This record gives sequence, structure tokens and C-alpha cells, in this order.
Amino acid sequence: MSDQHVPIRAGVIGLGSMGLGMALSLARAGIETWGCDLNPAACKALKGEGGHIAASPAEIGSKVDVLFCVVVNMQQAEAVLAGAGGAVGAMAPGSVVIQCATCAPDAVKALAAEIAASDVLFIDGPISGGSAKAHAGQITVMASGPPAAFERARPAFDAVAARVFNLGTEIGAGSQVKLVNQLLAGVHIAAAAEAMAYGISGGCDPKALFEVITASAGNSFMFENRVPHILEDDFAPRSAVDIFVKDLGLVHNSALARKFPLPLAAQALTMFTQASAMGLGREDDAAVVKIFPGVDLPRKGN
Amino acid sequence: MSDQHVPIRAGVIGLGSMGLGMALSLARAGIETWGCDLNPAACKALKGEGGHIAASPAEIGSKVDVLFCVVVNMQQAEAVLAGAGGAVGAMAPGSVVIQCATCAPDAVKALAAEIAASDVLFIDGPISGGSAKAHAGQITVMASGPPAAFERARPAFDAVAARVFNLGTEIGAGSQVKLVNQLLAGVHIAAAAEAMAYGISGGCDPKALFEVITASAGNSFMFENRVPHILEDDFAPRSAVDIFVKDLGLVHNSALARKFPLPLAAQALTMFTQASAMGLGREDDAAVVKIFPGVDLPRKGN
Repeated sequence: MSDQHVPIRAGVIGLGSMGLGMALSLARAGIETWGCDLNPAACKALKGEGGHIAASPAEIGSKVDVLFCVVVNMQQAEAVLAGAGGAVGAMAPGSVVIQCATCAPDAVKALAAEIAASDVLFIDGPISGGSAKAHAGQITVMASGPPAAFERARPAFDAVAARVFNLGTEIGAGSQVKLVNQLLAGVHIAAAAEAMAYGISGGCDPKALFEVITASAGNSFMFENRVPHILEDDFAPRSAVDIFVKDLGLVHNSALARKFPLPLAAQALTMFTQASAMGLGREDDAAVVKIFPGVDLPRKGN
Repeated sequence: MSDQHVPIRAGVIGLGSMGLGMALSLARAGIETWGCDLNPAACKALKGEGGHIAASPAEIGSKVDVLFCVVVNMQQAEAVLAGAGGAVGAMAPGSVVIQCATCAPDAVKALAAEIAASDVLFIDGPISGGSAKAHAGQITVMASGPPAAFERARPAFDAVAARVFNLGTEIGAGSQVKLVNQLLAGVHIAAAAEAMAYGISGGCDPKALFEVITASAGNSFMFENRVPHILEDDFAPRSAVDIFVKDLGLVHNSALARKFPLPLAAQALTMFTQASAMGLGREDDAAVVKIFPGVDLPRKGN
């Protein structure tokens, strides 16, 4: 029996909406699944599907062969993975860490270098798709790292992802592609908001506008996905304004570091930052439409 | 036999790539079709499908019941439709003019007012879809005007369009929706260029980037449609840089006139203007990617 057929044990640190969905997808695929988070409701949800809860990063590290790190930023990833008390120090040789947070490529390289002394394999593997796809085991992973790590992680990837793009062996490549995606996603959300605000101010019926644009060359994934939030006056956060303040900030800083100009991304970053400064940081990212003054936006129940 | 069953005669002024495609689609649908253009090759192509050629706007006006005006801008539309020698003066009462060029809503209103003294019906009907869809009879029309005009033009719309959005009776409504579409289309092309340039400068493989983004939340109709031109180093104009200098200029001026801010559209307009100033105005609009310095863009044959 080859090593490939030994069942793996998988873990997720960070049971937010994406991380919990991924952990549930792992458990439903029949994989022994561990989770770690401070939020008791998320832990309870995973237990309800037969998952196990670890009390600390070190404990989950000692229990699993493949560990997804689904935290918010590099500061958190560093804290739960590296150093004394981090998960990596407790992981068995040949096990795999997949770093899923959206981070600067250089910071991911530095983290990988920091844990290189261990015998744990590292994948730079940011994820995309949102909460619903995570719960359905249908996320996209933009990944780079050593072939042995992909081989070992394969059953876990199969359980959580519709597609895993292997972008080569170089750590940072996955994160760089993710930043390109975030540049476009952020600009497209801000453009959708600008276009709807401009159209409404020009007398267009918002619903007719949505119907025409989604059938025309002006359409984007984000226009189609976010404009319904504007039409329904529903800004409960699926993904918040402040996520794009962070992600476009990473895009912006990574470009500035190599003196590369980003006229649209810089403008979109300013728009999300303005929304955040107006107190909308925790609203749905479609709330960036509220930075345009004097627009008669659709109201709930109308 | 009701009036609806009397066969209509249709015409197209302006046999550019869109106009010629529409004229050919009318002729192929069995409608008596007239065309008018200074370009002999386009006239010959229409004759080859059984169409007729009129020597002047006044002549085509005298021959048809439904006339599409598919010229480049309002100045041309005004010249071929209104005043002495214009098509409208020669058209029979109850016939229909459909103004298809992308123009400022206020200018279209003024043109409609100018010809209101005639008994010719007017539709504000900008079109979208490009040359291939025009040749296939599959364009989109964003139209507003009197119901009687839509009724009379129906067989011609059926021959040229996959969808005709009826945006109400107010002249200007069609053009306003078209400008919203152009805002998004222009920003999305510029964003696709910016994202590809940024990604390549960060070491991403251009083809892998295209594959990942088209499967992710950063995708747009324009990213998917235009980035192949960049990958193939093929900037032969399907639609030229200068078209977006014009269209985003219309968007920008219409917003400025009502003191409405457009942070992204203004930035994208500057990007296309910069490309035009670099001598790229007649290249494909994807050539806006060339404004980013020091990027190792794909080269033909590699």
C-alpha cells in the first residue's frame, strides 16, 4: 500500500466564514478534521459535523498532516504558525502548511523562510470564492510551493476546492496572482458603485440598468454579484469595505515598493478608504456606493 | 391585413463594421435594405447580399420606412439626419429614425427636438456588441422613444438584434444607459491592462494569470475579451483606443455638467488619452497596456 493511501488528518486555523466552510467540507469528505478558533459558535458548528477542536495552534499542529491557515492577515498568520507556541513547531516532518490569507508576496516569502528550518512543507495558497463556495467545497486556490507538498495535500485540496491552480514552486507566486485578482475585484466593485450612482443621478431606473448591463459588455463578476446588494438596500457584510482597504492597500504597497504605477487601483483604494472614514468599514463592500453624494439609492421595501 | 404585415423597407447610414453588419443582417432577413456610405468596399459588400445603395442621405430617406443611423458621433448624426439634405426631410410621415451612435443624452434630446417638426418618429437607440454580433444579427439595443416607433421598427429590430431593451418613452434614456455601459467597459479595459502589467512586472506568467483570473472573482467581460489581444501581441483595432477617448470623454463631460464626481472613469479617460498621446490612438483599445513602462509584454511568435 503506497503512502498516498494512508488517510490524512486535516486542520483549519481560523474558523471565519471561509475557514469554517472549508473545515466543514473536509469533515463531510470523511477526513479526520481539526479546527482552532476563539469563537465558540464556529467550534460548535464544526463539532456538529464530527470535527474536533484544538485548544491552541500548537495542539492543532500536533494532530494534523495538512493544515490550512485561514486567518485575516500576515500578522495573525505569523502569530499562529511561527515561533514558540506556533503550529509549525508541533507538526510532524513531511506535513504541510497552506497559508491562505491574502498577504504581500514578500511577507509570505519571509514567513516561509522563517519556518524553513523545520521539516514542514509550505504552500503559498491564497483562496478565493467566498463563504458559500467554501461551504460547498468549491473554492479556488492560487498556489505555489514544492511538488511534494501538493502531493501530500491533494486529498484535502480535493475536499475544499473546485480548482487548485499550481503556479510553480516559488513561494510568493500564489500571493502575487491573488493580489492581481484583488486589484481587479476591488476596482470592479468600486466601478460598479460609481456606474450605478452615475446612472441613477442621470435618471436611470436602477433595476433596468442592472438588467441591461449584465447582458452587455460592461458586465463583470463583481457587478453581477454586488449590485443586487445596492438594489436591495442590504449592506449586511458578506465581505466588508475594510477588507478592500486592506487588500488594495497590499496591492498598492507592493507596487510602490517596485515603483510601479497603479492609477485605477490607487483610486479604488481611496474610494474604499473614504467609505471607511465615513463609518462604513464594517458594511458590505457594495456600501462604497454611499460615497457619492445626493444619489437617490434604492430603499428597502420599495 | 393589418399594417403590421406590410413589409418594411430598412436602411443604414454609416456602413462601418457595426453598420455594415446590421445592413447585411437586414438583407439576409429578406427585408428590402438600403445603405449609404462613402466607402465603396462596404457598399459593394451590401450589394453582394442583394442590398441597394443610396447616393445621399436624402435619397436613402426617400426609400425606407426604418432608418438606422450608425455614424461615429453627434456631429455626423446631425449632418446626415437634420437640416437641408438630411435624411429626415425626405422620409415619409410615420417612418422611424433610430439614432445608434454613442452620444451625450442632452445632444440626442436636442437632435430629436430639431426634427420634431417632421412627422418622422425618433428612437434614441445606441447599440452594443461589436462587429461579429452585428454580422450575426445579434446586437443589443438600449432604446427609448414612442411606442408607435418601436411597433413600426419591430421587424428591423428582430433582424439585427438579440435584445432590444425598451427604456421608456423619454429621449435620452437610451443614451444615458449606454454611457453607463461605456463607463464600465472603459474602466474594465483599463483595469485589465493595469492588472496584467502589474502582474507581469511582479513575475506572473501572463497566460497563467489569464487562466486564473477568468476563473475567479476578478473576471469581467472585457478582461476575458481584450486580454487575449495582449497575450497574442495583436493590437489590430477591433475597437480603437480613440473610441474610448471619445466615449469616456462623453461620460466625463455629462457628469461634470451636473457636478457629479467619477473618480475611476476620469482616471481611465486619462489612461486612454495618455495612450493616444503616445501615438496609439488607432490601435486596439487593449493597447492602453502600453502606457505602463518597463513591462515585458508577450511578443508575437513567442
